[in-house]
Amino acid sequence: MQQNIKSDYVLSMDFGGTKLAAAVINICTGNIISIARKKTPALQGAGATINTMVEIGKEVLEQSELTDQIKRIGISFGGLVDKSQTTVLHSHHVEGWDGLVLTEIISNIFNLPTYMDNDVNAAALGEWYFGSGERAKNFIYIQISTGVGAGLILNKYLYRGEGLAGEFGHTTVIPDGPKCVCGRNGCIESLCSGWAIARDGKAALHTTTRDSLLWQLSNGLEDNIDAKLVIDAYRKNDPSAKAIIKRAFTNLAIPIANSICLLDPEIVMLGGGIAHAKDVILEILEPVLEEQVHYIFKDRYRLVFSELNGQETLLGAALLSNNDEYINN
Amino acid sequence: MQQNIKSDYVLSMDFGGTKLAAAVINICTGNIISIARKKTPALQGAGATINTMVEIGKEVLEQSELTDQIKRIGISFGGLVDKSQTTVLHSHHVEGWDGLVLTEIISNIFNLPTYMDNDVNAAALGEWYFGSGERAKNFIYIQISTGVGAGLILNKYLYRGEGLAGEFGHTTVIPDGPKCVCGRNGCIESLCSGWAIARDGKAALHTTTRDSLLWQLSNGLEDNIDAKLVIDAYRKNDPSAKAIIKRAFTNLAIPIANSICLLDPEIVMLGGGIAHAKDVILEILEPVLEEQVHYIFKDRYRLVFSELNGQETLLGAALLSNNDEYINN
Repeated sequence: MQQNIKSDYVLSMDFGGTKLAAAVINICTGNIISIARKKTPALQGAGATINTMVEIGKEVLEQSELTDQIKRIGISFGGLVDKSQTTVLHSHHVEGWDGLVLTEIISNIFNLPTYMDNDVNAAALGEWYFGSGERAKNFIYIQISTGVGAGLILNKYLYRGEGLAGEFGHTTVIPDGPKCVCGRNGCIESLCSGWAIARDGKAALHTTTRDSLLWQLSNGLEDNIDAKLVIDAYRKNDPSAKAIIKRAFTNLAIPIANSICLLDPEIVMLGGGIAHAKDVILEILEPVLEEQVHYIFKDRYRLVFSELNGQETLLGAALLSNNDEYINN
Repeated sequence: MQQNIKSDYVLSMDFGGTKLAAAVINICTGNIISIARKKTPALQGAGATINTMVEIGKEVLEQSELTDQIKRIGISFGGLVDKSQTTVLHSHHVEGWDGLVLTEIISNIFNLPTYMDNDVNAAALGEWYFGSGERAKNFIYIQISTGVGAGLILNKYLYRGEGLAGEFGHTTVIPDGPKCVCGRNGCIESLCSGWAIARDGKAALHTTTRDSLLWQLSNGLEDNIDAKLVIDAYRKNDPSAKAIIKRAFTNLAIPIANSICLLDPEIVMLGGGIAHAKDVILEILEPVLEEQVHYIFKDRYRLVFSELNGQETLLGAALLSNNDEYINN
C-alpha cells in the first residue's frame, strides 16, 4: 500500500447513537466533497443501521463523482471498539452490535480496505490534524457531550493504550460524589456531562419556585430539561442553574490539571456539544485551573476549544484510513 | 552512529541528592561489570559533585578493563532536566545546578557522546527493559520514595511529553488535603511520599502516649521518625501508624485508577524506597483499587513491584544512550 495518500479521497462514515453521517473527504485538504446524514434507526438494531449507512455511503460516493479515486474507508463508531480496530465491543445506544466485525462488513460491501476507531479518537484525530490541535506533538482532546471521553495524540501518534485508552470521563474527582453510569461515584462524567447537567437540572425543578427561570424555560416539566436549557438558565442568572453549572465546570479543573501533570501536553482541547458553551466554561474553569495546574506547567500548555463545527468526527474517521502516518498499531 | 548497540558497554552515572553512583553496564544483558558509589558532596555544590562523579566514573572504567569498548555515557539526574535532555533545569537538593549543560561537561571530560534524563524516567526505562516491566507496550512506573513521580513507556517509547511528563506526584487527590511542596494541597505526594509519611509520624508523636510503639521506636524524638519507622510501627499494629499508613496508601488508589482509565496500560509498577513495603501497600491498596478501577479495565492491567533492588536507575541511565530504539526525541 505505497500509494500517495496525500492526494487520496476517502469515504468516511460516522455511526452515532442518534445520527449517521457519510462523506467523501479529501484528507490532504480536509475538504468535504459530498455529505449526507440520516437518523440512526436505533430501535431496529445494528443490521438496519448498517443498511442505512450503506445507503448514504453510496449516495455520497455518487454525488462526489470520484468513486474511482476512493481507495479506502474510515469509520467512526460511537461505542467501544476492540484492540484490533475491526470489531465493535459494545454500543450503549443500539442493540445487536456486540462482536460485529464492522470493518469487514463494510469492506466487503464496498470492496475497499476499511479502518475504524471509536468516535472520540476519531474526533481527536480530526481536531489535531485539521483543527486547533495544530498537529502538536502532544495533544489531549476532551469531549464533553452526553458523556465525557478523551482522545490522546502522543508523540504525534494516536494513542490507544491496550485499546481502550482515553476514558477520561471515568477518572474520579469526588469519591463520594454522584453515582456514575459506570457504577462508581464522582467520575468527571457524573459531574459535567450532558446527562449529569440534565440530571441536576431536573432535580432542581423540585426545589425551585414557579417563578424561577428554570421553571419557566421548562414549563415545569422535567422532560423539557436538558443540559442546553440549564446552560441557558445559567447565562440568564437563574440561581439553581448557576450552582449546577458552577459545580460541573469547577470540577473539570482537577482532572485537566492532573492530565497535564502526567502527560505535559502542548495543547488541551475541549470539544463536544457541551463545550460549545465556551464562554460559560472559561468563566468558571480558568480561575480554578490557575489554582490547580502545577506551577511548572502553567505557561507550557494552551487550552483551546473545537472550531470544526461538528465535522471533526467525520474528518478524523477519514484520517483513520491514513494509518501509516500517525497511527501506531 | 550505526554501531551494533546490542553488544555495547555503557558508562552509567546516577546523580542523586544524597548518593552518586557510576557503573559500567552491558546494555544487552543488563550485567553490571563494575560499580562504585560515593556520598553526594551536596553542601559543596554542583562543581564538587561533578568532580566526585568523574572520579568514580574513571574508577569503574578502569575496573571494568573495557574502556576501549565503551562508546557512550548515560546519565540519570535527580531533578528537572530540560526538553533537549542536555541541561539541568533544577535540583531540589544541591545548589548551583540550574542551567548547567551537564551532558556537554561530562561528554567533554570523557570524550564520549552523553545522554541524560531525570532519575524517574531512567528508573522507568530500567524496570521496563530489565525488570518486571517486561518491555510491555504500555507501562506506568510510579516511584514512591522521598517524593513521588512517574515514568511512562507508551507505545514502547519513553514518553516525555514536552519534556516534563510524569509529574504523577502532583496530581491532586484531596483538594483540601495537606499542603504540598508545590504550593497546592492534597497532591498524592503530600499524602504517601516518604516526607509526607514522616511528617504525619512526627505530628502523631504529639498526640500519642509514652507507652505507644511510635514513641518507643523513636525515643519520643521527632528527628528519629522517618517513613520506614512509621511503616515498621504499622506492621506492629501501632494505632497512629495504622491510621497514617492506611490514609497514605488508600489515597494511592484513585490516581492509579485514573491513570489506568486515561492510558490503559498493560503493567503498572510501584517502585522506590517506600514501595519496598510491598506487603503493607498491597494489604491496603488492593481492596481500594478493586473498587476504584473502572470495570472495563479490571482484568486488563497488572500491578507489579520493582525487583531490581535499587539498580533500576543505573540500568535505565545506561539505556538512555541507546536512543534509537525506545526513545523518541
